[in-house]
This record gives sequence, structure tokens and C-alpha cells, in this order.
Amino acid sequence: MSILVVGSVAFDSVETPFGRVEDVLGGSGTYFSTSASFFTDVSLVAVVGEDFPAEHLDFLRSRNVDLSGLQTAPGQTFRWKGRYGYDLNEAQTLDTQLNVFETFKPDLPAACRQAEYVFLGNIDPELQLEVLKQVEKPKLVACDTMNFWIEGKREALLATLRHVDILLINEGEARQLAGEANLVKASRIILAMGPKTLVVKRGEYGVILFSAHSIFSAPAFPLESVFDPTGAGDTFAGGFMGYLASTNNLSEGSLRQATVLGSVMASFTVEDFSLNRMKALAYPEIEERFRRFKLLTEFDGLG
Amino acid sequence: MSILVVGSVAFDSVETPFGRVEDVLGGSGTYFSTSASFFTDVSLVAVVGEDFPAEHLDFLRSRNVDLSGLQTAPGQTFRWKGRYGYDLNEAQTLDTQLNVFETFKPDLPAACRQAEYVFLGNIDPELQLEVLKQVEKPKLVACDTMNFWIEGKREALLATLRHVDILLINEGEARQLAGEANLVKASRIILAMGPKTLVVKRGEYGVILFSAHSIFSAPAFPLESVFDPTGAGDTFAGGFMGYLASTNNLSEGSLRQATVLGSVMASFTVEDFSLNRMKALAYPEIEERFRRFKLLTEFDGLG
Repeated sequence: MSILVVGSVAFDSVETPFGRVEDVLGGSGTYFSTSASFFTDVSLVAVVGEDFPAEHLDFLRSRNVDLSGLQTAPGQTFRWKGRYGYDLNEAQTLDTQLNVFETFKPDLPAACRQAEYVFLGNIDPELQLEVLKQVEKPKLVACDTMNFWIEGKREALLATLRHVDILLINEGEARQLAGEANLVKASRIILAMGPKTLVVKRGEYGVILFSAHSIFSAPAFPLESVFDPTGAGDTFAGGFMGYLASTNNLSEGSLRQATVLGSVMASFTVEDFSLNRMKALAYPEIEERFRRFKLLTEFDGLG
Repeated sequence: MSILVVGSVAFDSVETPFGRVEDVLGGSGTYFSTSASFFTDVSLVAVVGEDFPAEHLDFLRSRNVDLSGLQTAPGQTFRWKGRYGYDLNEAQTLDTQLNVFETFKPDLPAACRQAEYVFLGNIDPELQLEVLKQVEKPKLVACDTMNFWIEGKREALLATLRHVDILLINEGEARQLAGEANLVKASRIILAMGPKTLVVKRGEYGVILFSAHSIFSAPAFPLESVFDPTGAGDTFAGGFMGYLASTNNLSEGSLRQATVLGSVMASFTVEDFSLNRMKALAYPEIEERFRRFKLLTEFDGLG
């Protein structure tokens, strides 16, 4: 199965303790679709400005990403500027310029409306719902969001969540959305909002997957150098959804493998700025790191 | 094999968002020996004041803890007072009264000097080394410490670490001891100080075990109510060492099982104040939670 993703395509300027870059390729849709492209076909619905260079489009096409839903609008591409300290878990946003994103109205090409796997990147929940309405009969809808929408567009977000199968958010957002500090209790409140599965991203502490009858906890892959965490969450989502769509299997076991593959993909992305590491990545490296992930977590029963 | 532990026996006064208690049974030696007693015999070397009630001694004896190394000194028992906010990962210490601990000189009874498994609780590293000198031929020495000693008695601590096989500390302490923010790099620096294994405790995010050729990452058991985290680290160490001593097996596989059992024990302790949960605990509950821990973390290979 192929995936439809709606999200941002952006220029990022990032400063970490290990270096800085300006106006490099970024955006939730970019990270997601590149990551998912290692597992299945992806169609990216997004908007860029007239300043967006052909080389970035060529890169996405080289990953077999369908760009028929990518609009080019008059004006500048979305820009984000952020900084990380030694605590790489949280970015400090220095500047956000929505630019062409400000008036973005997703309009899905006919082929995209048949999509069975849909990922709604972290954009205005009203736009997320607008996209969903255009998809005829999705089999699986996953969604990301953030504190900005949880606070500012709660009703629209709750309306979207009623149509979402899997919600992927970070730990602070889960607590905020549920209004509950304890994560296990918070997960139950969120699962009552619509999603059948909640994926809580905890940065360097890994991921917890909550479903009605099961909890799966996966650590992050321990890395010697985390260079730039930008895009880790969307890269995770891309690996996660990419694997599910490629197997077309939504069992608990498949969700767990998808969670580990998402973590593996994220562990590559943070090793370099922008999408540089994924640009150099080959599938056997993914399999190899998945095997190391298994060695990292396995233990015998008490017998 | 039985274990010798040196640590504190204390009265704790604790406030959490869920309640408060005053002058309840606490101390690293108490939590450790009670937890380890579910797996093997334990001898506790510590000091209490004349105010220490017989009921607490009776409880420890009921857990089969050998108290021949427990001194009673003139004066008051060690007291600690702390508070936790909704972020239960870090205690705010409100008051510490060393009392009889101030002049404590461990003097091991003859039987204790034969110990093969030794746990040096979080006390002055000079006292830790003093205890070690009295043990004739230990097979395995594990040790805890804290920021206070890392800062204030670094040389003494490094001298102790040269004789330690397993160091158990929390994440911030590992970074501080190594002078390195990245945990994987920090682990390598610490393993060069003497310990063959480093156990990094991360509270609600679980535990990472570093050895020369292997890393094992275990999440914490997700709990619906974490009532009071006091003693979680020492309870972890008790379950960890208790299992190793009971099996007398120091293979990587055994260390991993011990890590999970330590996490299981800690997950019980935090469900209530003081040692209340461990007082009500039965061994089949430990086995059951270990099985649930396995379900929490397992996933299939990619096949």
C-alpha cells in the first residue's frame, strides 16, 4: 500500500552545540516522506514557494516520492529557525515564517484521494480534517499535533481525532491533551477521544505505544553522537507508517515492529543535519540497526 | 550466595502530591536488604540510634535479614526529609540529620567478612573502602554513590571504584562523574575507572546497562499511580544484586534478567510510602510482573 502524507516542506536554520546550518531542507512532510520511502510509495501533499530549488524536488523524486500533490505558490517557502542546547530533547524556536503555508488549501489530485494509508503531519487540525474529507476510504489514518493546536484549536483537534486511528505525539503533549500528569491514565483518556492507538514519543528515552489491551515500550537507540534532533519525530512516523503500509498488517506484532523501525529511522536522522543521513542511507543499514535494537532490548524469561 | 550490604537505616519524612508521612522506616540499607531478601540471604551493616523501634528490627528479621552487623549507638537515628512535586523524578531534600551516622565506623562481624556478594550503599566513599578492606575475598562488589561524593570526595570515590565491579548511579551522576554529556561516551569513561558494568538509573525512563561489549536498555514498568519514588534506586539494586547472588551467575544474560527484576522490585516500592508495598509483597507477584515486563518489551524480528 502507498501512503498519503500532508505536512510542511520547509527551509530550516538550526543551531546545535555541534554546528549550525542555514536554510537547509526540512519540514514534517519532507522528513516523513523520505523516511517512509524506504518501505513503500509515498505521495506528498504540501506547498512550497517560488524560491524552492529544483535539487530538493529532484531528491524527493529520487526517493520515488510522488509530488503530484505538491503545490508551488507565489511567495517564499515556509521557514523555521531553532536552537538546541546540550539537552537535545527540546528545541527553542527562534523564528517561524509561515509564508506560502499561511494560505495553503490542500487540494488532492484524484489519485491521492484513493489513498488507504494517510498521515496528517503537524498542521492546523482544520486543514487535517479538510484533507481527510477528500480521501475516499482510508484504511488507516495517523496524525501528529503539537501544544500550539492543543491549546489554540482544541475543538477542531478533537473533531479530527474522532477520525484518527493512531495519534503520535510527544510526552508533554499527551499530558496536556489529556489534562493528566500520569502517562498511563493520560493514554486512557486520549484513547477515548477516538484513536485506537497512541504513540508517545519521548526523545532520547524512546517510545511508548498504548492500545486498549496492550502497552509496548521501546528505548531509543543509544548513540554516541546526537548531532541534530530536528525531524526525529517525523522520521519516526515515516518509518512507522511506511512499514505498516508495506506489510498492510495492523496486528499488535506489526505495530511493535513498526515502532522499532520508526526508532531506527529516527536514530539515523539525528546523526547529521537536515536529511543528510537519510540521503546517504541504504536499506541494509536499517536491517542491521533493527537487529542491534533487538540485541539491545532482549532478555530471557526466568525459566 | 548471600549478600553483605552497608548502607543507611533511617527515618524518612516525605511529602508527595498524593500524601505525606513522618518518621517512617527508610534508608538505603533498609530498602536494599528488604528487596534482596526476596531472592537470597542478606546481612545488613548499618547503625541506628537508641530511638529505633523494635518493630522495625522485627520486620527486617521477618525478611530473614541478618542484623549481626547492625550497631545501635547512643543518640538519634539518621533522618531525611524530602518533597516531590508532580515531576516525581527528583526529590527536593528539606532536611538531613546524620545523627548516629556522623560517627559510624563499620566493623564487620566475622561471618560478614566471608561475604562473596557485597553492595556498598550510597555513603562516604572512605567508609565504602573501609568496608571493602574488611571483606576477605569478595566475588562481586557493587556500589552506589551520589553527586555529593562525586563533587566533594572525588579522589576517595575513584579509589573505591578501582575495587568495584558494578556501579549503579543515576543519569545525572553518570554525566557528572564522567564529565561528558553523551551517555554512551560517559559510560566508556566510567568503565575505564574500574567497574566492568555500569547501571544507569533513569527513574520513570528505566535503566541502561553498559558493559565493555554490550548495552541493555530496559524501560520502567508503566504504572498508573506512582505514589512515592523514595527508595526506588536502592530497591532496584536489591532486586538486581539479590538475583545475581541467588543464581551466582554473572553472565550477560543473568545481568539482564537481574536488571529487569530490579526494575520490577522498584515498580512495587513506588506504589506506596516507605516499605509498605514490599511488606505486603509475595514472590508470585514478582514473577507475574516479570512476565508482564517481557510482554511490554518484546517484538519479533523482521523475518
